[in-house]
Amino acid sequence: MATRIPLQAVEDLLLSVTQSAVPLLSQTSAHILRAGGKRLRPRLVLLAYAATGGDNAEYAVPLAAAVEIIHTATLVHDDINDQGTLRRGHETVNARWGKTYALLTGDFLFTKTYEVMAAYPPRFNRSLAQAALELVEGETLQMHAAKAGQLDRDTYYQIIAKKTAALFVACVELGAMAADAPQAQIEALTRYAFDVGMAFQITDDILDLIADADQVGKTTGIDLEQGRGLAAAQLKNDGNAPNARASLTQRILDGTTLEAVVAVGRAKAQELIQTAQAALQGLPPSAARDELHALADYVLERDH
Amino acid sequence: MATRIPLQAVEDLLLSVTQSAVPLLSQTSAHILRAGGKRLRPRLVLLAYAATGGDNAEYAVPLAAAVEIIHTATLVHDDINDQGTLRRGHETVNARWGKTYALLTGDFLFTKTYEVMAAYPPRFNRSLAQAALELVEGETLQMHAAKAGQLDRDTYYQIIAKKTAALFVACVELGAMAADAPQAQIEALTRYAFDVGMAFQITDDILDLIADADQVGKTTGIDLEQGRGLAAAQLKNDGNAPNARASLTQRILDGTTLEAVVAVGRAKAQELIQTAQAALQGLPPSAARDELHALADYVLERDH
Repeated sequence: MATRIPLQAVEDLLLSVTQSAVPLLSQTSAHILRAGGKRLRPRLVLLAYAATGGDNAEYAVPLAAAVEIIHTATLVHDDINDQGTLRRGHETVNARWGKTYALLTGDFLFTKTYEVMAAYPPRFNRSLAQAALELVEGETLQMHAAKAGQLDRDTYYQIIAKKTAALFVACVELGAMAADAPQAQIEALTRYAFDVGMAFQITDDILDLIADADQVGKTTGIDLEQGRGLAAAQLKNDGNAPNARASLTQRILDGTTLEAVVAVGRAKAQELIQTAQAALQGLPPSAARDELHALADYVLERDH
Repeated sequence: MATRIPLQAVEDLLLSVTQSAVPLLSQTSAHILRAGGKRLRPRLVLLAYAATGGDNAEYAVPLAAAVEIIHTATLVHDDINDQGTLRRGHETVNARWGKTYALLTGDFLFTKTYEVMAAYPPRFNRSLAQAALELVEGETLQMHAAKAGQLDRDTYYQIIAKKTAALFVACVELGAMAADAPQAQIEALTRYAFDVGMAFQITDDILDLIADADQVGKTTGIDLEQGRGLAAAQLKNDGNAPNARASLTQRILDGTTLEAVVAVGRAKAQELIQTAQAALQGLPPSAARDELHALADYVLERDH
């Protein structure tokens, strides 16, 4: 039986809070926010809140919106750098409105996150600031390692810990802090969220390799093209490290190598999901805890 | 006699706080932060703090650093959109490291502002979040009005209120809040700062028209080229509104028009500085209040 977490209230807030005195910013924000997405991060906030005994969802809803907004800000900026044209099944802001407005839309969404969070005490803001910082560092590290042909497996894990897992951790921390959870429960949740975040990104990278754009709703194959992601890291560790993009693309398009990369990635993701689910034992039994367990399975099994 | 405000402590914090686990981000940040600038915004924070009786500068220094960091973030992003090559007398981050790293450096600086501010209570964060939002809105409005050829004088004032004056207001608000100033003093300071901010931007636009890059340390003439700023607004109101950039450039290079634009701008800036200085009467006499008075004169008289 599903907990009734107030996802619709989050959706409403996402749109109302990103209204701007400058209509263009309301339009670009609504375009990318309305396009949907899986809303995994708001779910993590609200489930962590419920699983640690939170019972005033109104206090947690803005936190759930804040993490989705900052996540969306990074997507809008990433799409400038990647020149992806499809995101969440729609045109990217960059493709539709151009680079300048995409840059400003991302900045606008960052400031909106900050505005929403301003109502909360310092420790909430410290948690999200730390994650925001790691998001940017992870993205920079990725760009740099790919350009330098230095993306080995350790660097890959370091990158995805920063660019993905850190925000997953902040989500459950914020939810649990809002419920005034005991430290032991916060720690169980952050262990869970870190592993789920790592598994999520590995699965995302696998989909980038094997799925097509229609299926996942965004431009695929960008990792390959740019010499980054799961496949690049794997090949580097196998001693096959390509320094030139063309060479990477050639190797990976050889089916055997592709299968091997996917198999290693899947095994790692599976292992992470198991340790994530084990960490949930640190929480009292509840419908919300069961949903966190199910969310971890979904991360592994999703095909888009 | 000058108050001894701890500007060196601000400089030190600017550099230490922008150290990153990703060396590239430390480098790009240090490049733009070391280049200096007038540090008007940190001065405003620290002088507002002192003028309202603050006597524990350690509490105000991080606030002074935070406003300079967010200001710098917007400069780095503006330089991507404007393709300016010179800033604070040095190459822009965009010119030296390229668009991708300039975008990430701006994002990094935004998150660092957020990190520094996370230690402060909600009302501090509400104040800066409001200003951050207006910075982005002002820049967007400017881009949009210039592209649409809709920059009349009212729109121009609306733009500079958001893109410049709003952060000046936040500076004195933060300083005064840190000193636990009475509401009447906060209001006197915000009236002062708004007018100084407006005059600062008008003077900046005049310098963009009449000075060369060596003198002001940044690429000049960009406003003209992009159909925005003081001159574009003035011409639009005179019924000379150019819809094409070439036409604006031609008109403005006609010396008579240029002189007229500069004269109107100077008169307006002078008027603003007078009302700003009058607002300072709402504060008790002090060396810091005298310095705020002098800072307003400097804004008018500066030639770079």
